[in-house]
Amino acid sequence: MNYFSSNFKLGILGGGQLGKMLLNDTRKFDIYTCVLDSSNEAPCKIASNEFHLGDLMNYDAVYNFGKQVDILTIEIENVNVDALEALEKEGIKVYPASKTLRTIQNKATQKSFYVANNLPTAPFSRFTYTSEINEAINQGDLTLPFVWKSAQFGYDGTGVKIVKTLEDLEGLPNVECIAETLVPFKNELAVIVVRNASGDTKTFPVVEMEFHPEANQVEYVICPARIPDDVAKKATEVALKTSEAFNHVGLLAVEMFQTQNDDVLINEVAPRPHNSGHQSIEASYTSQFEQHLRAILDLPLGRTDSKVGGVMVNLVGAEGYTGNVVYENIETIMEMDGVTPHIYGKQQTRPFRKMGHVTIVNENLNEARRIAEEVKKSIKVISE
Amino acid sequence: MNYFSSNFKLGILGGGQLGKMLLNDTRKFDIYTCVLDSSNEAPCKIASNEFHLGDLMNYDAVYNFGKQVDILTIEIENVNVDALEALEKEGIKVYPASKTLRTIQNKATQKSFYVANNLPTAPFSRFTYTSEINEAINQGDLTLPFVWKSAQFGYDGTGVKIVKTLEDLEGLPNVECIAETLVPFKNELAVIVVRNASGDTKTFPVVEMEFHPEANQVEYVICPARIPDDVAKKATEVALKTSEAFNHVGLLAVEMFQTQNDDVLINEVAPRPHNSGHQSIEASYTSQFEQHLRAILDLPLGRTDSKVGGVMVNLVGAEGYTGNVVYENIETIMEMDGVTPHIYGKQQTRPFRKMGHVTIVNENLNEARRIAEEVKKSIKVISE
Repeated sequence: MNYFSSNFKLGILGGGQLGKMLLNDTRKFDIYTCVLDSSNEAPCKIASNEFHLGDLMNYDAVYNFGKQVDILTIEIENVNVDALEALEKEGIKVYPASKTLRTIQNKATQKSFYVANNLPTAPFSRFTYTSEINEAINQGDLTLPFVWKSAQFGYDGTGVKIVKTLEDLEGLPNVECIAETLVPFKNELAVIVVRNASGDTKTFPVVEMEFHPEANQVEYVICPARIPDDVAKKATEVALKTSEAFNHVGLLAVEMFQTQNDDVLINEVAPRPHNSGHQSIEASYTSQFEQHLRAILDLPLGRTDSKVGGVMVNLVGAEGYTGNVVYENIETIMEMDGVTPHIYGKQQTRPFRKMGHVTIVNENLNEARRIAEEVKKSIKVISE
Repeated sequence: MNYFSSNFKLGILGGGQLGKMLLNDTRKFDIYTCVLDSSNEAPCKIASNEFHLGDLMNYDAVYNFGKQVDILTIEIENVNVDALEALEKEGIKVYPASKTLRTIQNKATQKSFYVANNLPTAPFSRFTYTSEINEAINQGDLTLPFVWKSAQFGYDGTGVKIVKTLEDLEGLPNVECIAETLVPFKNELAVIVVRNASGDTKTFPVVEMEFHPEANQVEYVICPARIPDDVAKKATEVALKTSEAFNHVGLLAVEMFQTQNDDVLINEVAPRPHNSGHQSIEASYTSQFEQHLRAILDLPLGRTDSKVGGVMVNLVGAEGYTGNVVYENIETIMEMDGVTPHIYGKQQTRPFRKMGHVTIVNENLNEARRIAEEVKKSIKVISE
């Protein structure tokens, strides 16, 4: 199939910032793109060839959209998987596969998948309803503290709570969930694996993620992670095994904990371009977005190593501000060495909403990390 | 002015590949863009916020378009300059300035500008009509060989001819022209200068341009140029002085000859993103396109040095093929180390038409140059 012609159509479910950055690279390859999103304000509205309005969780919307394209991919996991399964049966190539998405969409099923495939992850218990947790504690089957996670629709820290006392359980939604052992860890790491339809596989360098303590969102991503080689090797092997277990095509971002004993435990995965790979646009030989395209189009994969050290800072809405967004001091950060802001194009800010990110690249990773702190201190996403 | 809001509008005259790559970076900054082009098939049709159809040489089309934007820039020099002058008088910021474009659009005026500003360029004679050249030769005012150049609308080698004998003059259009001394040169070099509205100035590294002998089009651009430091310094100084002489805002690409004596002579300039800077997307800390935006929006300029060595190969239509384009062996080149194709999205190919370019980046410039030759040998732009 000739991807470099207008006879070929690539479908993307979701029109947010990940889709927007993916579209940038489709333009470079002149690939014809169709995007489905429920918002007329979606960042992907502009750079796609066709923008379709529709609910990603609606069977008909996804099915009818998917019927018009040759290859279908996602930029968000919360899509109607039944429709994807029907499309696969009719010969549409769907990457990631519906089966993978079904496993990942439910955190309990995702965790069970790791166990079944002999992949390291923190011990956990499954519950059909949060209300069952009290009884498990009373019976001695579960001990405090633990991490409560909603099985469905967790995204960026919502649906996750550290439970230290029984009171912490109050107010949690009464839904399917897991209680995961609270593992003290040194670092949160991530590895992005890319695998094309022919099965060629490459991994990006291990990155280190520093989280915002309150919002449970990634604050800095540091590439490569400043960890011992043997830990990096272990993390890379776990990520590769995870990609193989899913028989995955496209990008798979594997988030992991580095424990106090330097073991590596899978936290969760994302079968798409991921926040932990944004610095690849400036720092890597091939960006994660270009790699995702190469993989799903079954083209040769590009180099995954880095040209220079890279640090990514998320730009999230400041607390106390809601409304038309203003990027305060953006000119100040643009004066700094090797700084590139990426503004996602969302009109409205609200506390902790992802509004953009900033990449800092430098020959010297520690210098990049230092500048990243200056960036973080200077820029503020506020409202008019 | 807040560029990062939809109240601000950036206008771009021309919707070709340079505009397309510029738009990529406007998306990164979420800058609202309006593009004017005469073709409904223009590569910029997709990624702009507003696409306007209109003739770039038509006063009303350019004026009416320009009235709707805050800052107006170009991706091609052949635009109606009277309209730009009128817009400037009404307070629209026009970069490059109408005065600069008027000087550059006419090669005779451009050459005279260099002389008037004490900038080095090859000796030349001006003629109102080509027919006057014979008499000048007869009178001993001009000696063979020389380079004939049409004063108007030269682009990519059209309107240029090396005249060795009187017969070579036959068939040339009878237009305003210059006859330039044929200077034997070692290398063709280029330096891109970027200057923002506040007057901050930076230069990209000197690049080496290797030309296709027949088509008079750049075949390879090598960054940095493999020349002695003192020649690089001289070329950079000449480029900076040229930018200052124009009081230029935005990118100014200065093409130069390195003579046998290691003198540097200006060949011509382009007041916009330029073919000699495409490798900056992958090789430089800041791409030429991002720098152009930073400059015309009066933002701080980014780093202009390189992360890695870069070589650019132009993808032009192969001789003997006209019609719907096919990129033969594109998968072969994508297997090579550090290779990124950029497909401009033109449906129709014809001999020597610029259809795309390929960037090869590598820590080792000579290795990048070697791979560039493999790329050149492998890929072929043909028709269906």
